[in-house]
Amino acid sequence: MTPIYDRVALIGLGLIASSMFWAMKRGGLAGHVTGYARSAETRDTARRIGLCDKVCDTLAEAVADADLVVLAVPVGVMGQLAQDIAPYLKPRATVTDVGSVKGHVISDVAPHIPEGVHFVPAHPLAGTEHSGPESGFATLFDNRWCLIVPSEGSDSEAVETLSRYWRGLGSNVDVMEPDHHDLVLAVTSHCPHLIAYTMVGVADDLRRVTDSEVIKYSAAGFRDFTRIAASDPTMWRDVFLTNKDATLEILGRFTEELFALQRAIRQGDGPLLHDYFTRTRAIRRGIIEAGQDTAAPNFGRSG
Amino acid sequence: MTPIYDRVALIGLGLIASSMFWAMKRGGLAGHVTGYARSAETRDTARRIGLCDKVCDTLAEAVADADLVVLAVPVGVMGQLAQDIAPYLKPRATVTDVGSVKGHVISDVAPHIPEGVHFVPAHPLAGTEHSGPESGFATLFDNRWCLIVPSEGSDSEAVETLSRYWRGLGSNVDVMEPDHHDLVLAVTSHCPHLIAYTMVGVADDLRRVTDSEVIKYSAAGFRDFTRIAASDPTMWRDVFLTNKDATLEILGRFTEELFALQRAIRQGDGPLLHDYFTRTRAIRRGIIEAGQDTAAPNFGRSG
Repeated sequence: MTPIYDRVALIGLGLIASSMFWAMKRGGLAGHVTGYARSAETRDTARRIGLCDKVCDTLAEAVADADLVVLAVPVGVMGQLAQDIAPYLKPRATVTDVGSVKGHVISDVAPHIPEGVHFVPAHPLAGTEHSGPESGFATLFDNRWCLIVPSEGSDSEAVETLSRYWRGLGSNVDVMEPDHHDLVLAVTSHCPHLIAYTMVGVADDLRRVTDSEVIKYSAAGFRDFTRIAASDPTMWRDVFLTNKDATLEILGRFTEELFALQRAIRQGDGPLLHDYFTRTRAIRRGIIEAGQDTAAPNFGRSG
Repeated sequence: MTPIYDRVALIGLGLIASSMFWAMKRGGLAGHVTGYARSAETRDTARRIGLCDKVCDTLAEAVADADLVVLAVPVGVMGQLAQDIAPYLKPRATVTDVGSVKGHVISDVAPHIPEGVHFVPAHPLAGTEHSGPESGFATLFDNRWCLIVPSEGSDSEAVETLSRYWRGLGSNVDVMEPDHHDLVLAVTSHCPHLIAYTMVGVADDLRRVTDSEVIKYSAAGFRDFTRIAASDPTMWRDVFLTNKDATLEILGRFTEELFALQRAIRQGDGPLLHDYFTRTRAIRRGIIEAGQDTAAPNFGRSG
């Protein structure tokens, strides 16, 4: 297979970048892949496990000849990173990112992209609760969606090539506007994460129920929340700080609904509760039919 | 292996009762198992798939000779069921239940239990998002906890035998007070379910984000919520109506914490968010170390 990009640079070597590397190798999508991480420890780990064809000690070296530069760092530091790499970018290179928030990333990154370099923001909707260079695997993006979110003036050929690249990594690709992306993700990702963190925090704080009880008896539902609430704290802090408006809007809707259900419980309104709980089953069926989750009980957990 | 009970009657043939049947067969725990369900369709299904040694068309026939009678129906109808079976119970039989709420079930059921019959409430902390007679499987209770919640005057020998029976089904067994049980379960199960139902309901209601978008892009976290929110509506309606006080108390704590995090987002308080998100990782580690969940990414989902 002819590589889609001759040289790719991965900046930030966490779950997403490391999965991209293994998926690129699987698909023969890149001729040569450099990697950079700010922490020397992460770079050492990457070298030890063979992550990237070359792990570089400087940003300048990592991006120098790259046709595609992937910013795979927390969204709060994307702008600074763009500024730092700008002087070393090759003319006609494409810069992309994998951040979970698009409006903020675009306004932070776009001003630093030099004339003649293409900026095509993207967001693969895939992940696990694990993080770091050793958490990646080649199949992470298979049959998941990657949203390409062109910024004003994104070059259409660059968009098309990046779409082809993400399909090569295993994803389905959709194109979306930044504001709509940030609202959709507030619903499907950001608010569920905040709610899960909150519920786990409440359980941890209660004096009358011990942590040991919470842990032993978690199989009744709670353990699903703890998986989400084990995700990378820095990444998630940045998501909430940079997708503030959409997150707060959806949280407002959520608390409004929760209060309505609380009132139904207090008033003993069984029919309202039963109707509500029946309606939500349809969405689960849709997700399974769309191939976005398994129908096996408990996600097919083996233990 | 000598059966622990000669004759067992399962009343209600859903996920829990059907799993108990297959686990009893696996462990040789019962000489003969009768089953009863109110719906003729459920009884027909049970007969077709070989669930129970005998499926009976009346409660009277099902419980007549049973040494152990298991009430496996939604908690809202336990009291009526106890009244209906009371005249047919064998002296020295044990009646138990598998309800998710214990205080309410005890006050509803205990008054109907005849003198000379033992009532030993219990609650296996295991389940899936599926329901009905075909959803059961023999390993559901393996390494999960079953809480035995003796009511006032529960016979200690009957408690001991029931504990041995649940261990035979694969569970670990703890004994707990009813009020404490209902509080612990509000934290580990009831509130997480209500919150998941609410978040899925919000997503379903939004006009600016379509259901099709929610479904396609659910892998970013939301799909975990939809699993829980696909659980049996009747069972969950009854849980909230009968564990009202503990549920509302924990929901009060939850909204208080959620508001604190919302304020931190609005004010851009990164350190508070980061600290909160770091703390919740420890509980996940505890759950995995206690063997109550898998460490595999995304619960080890295969697709």
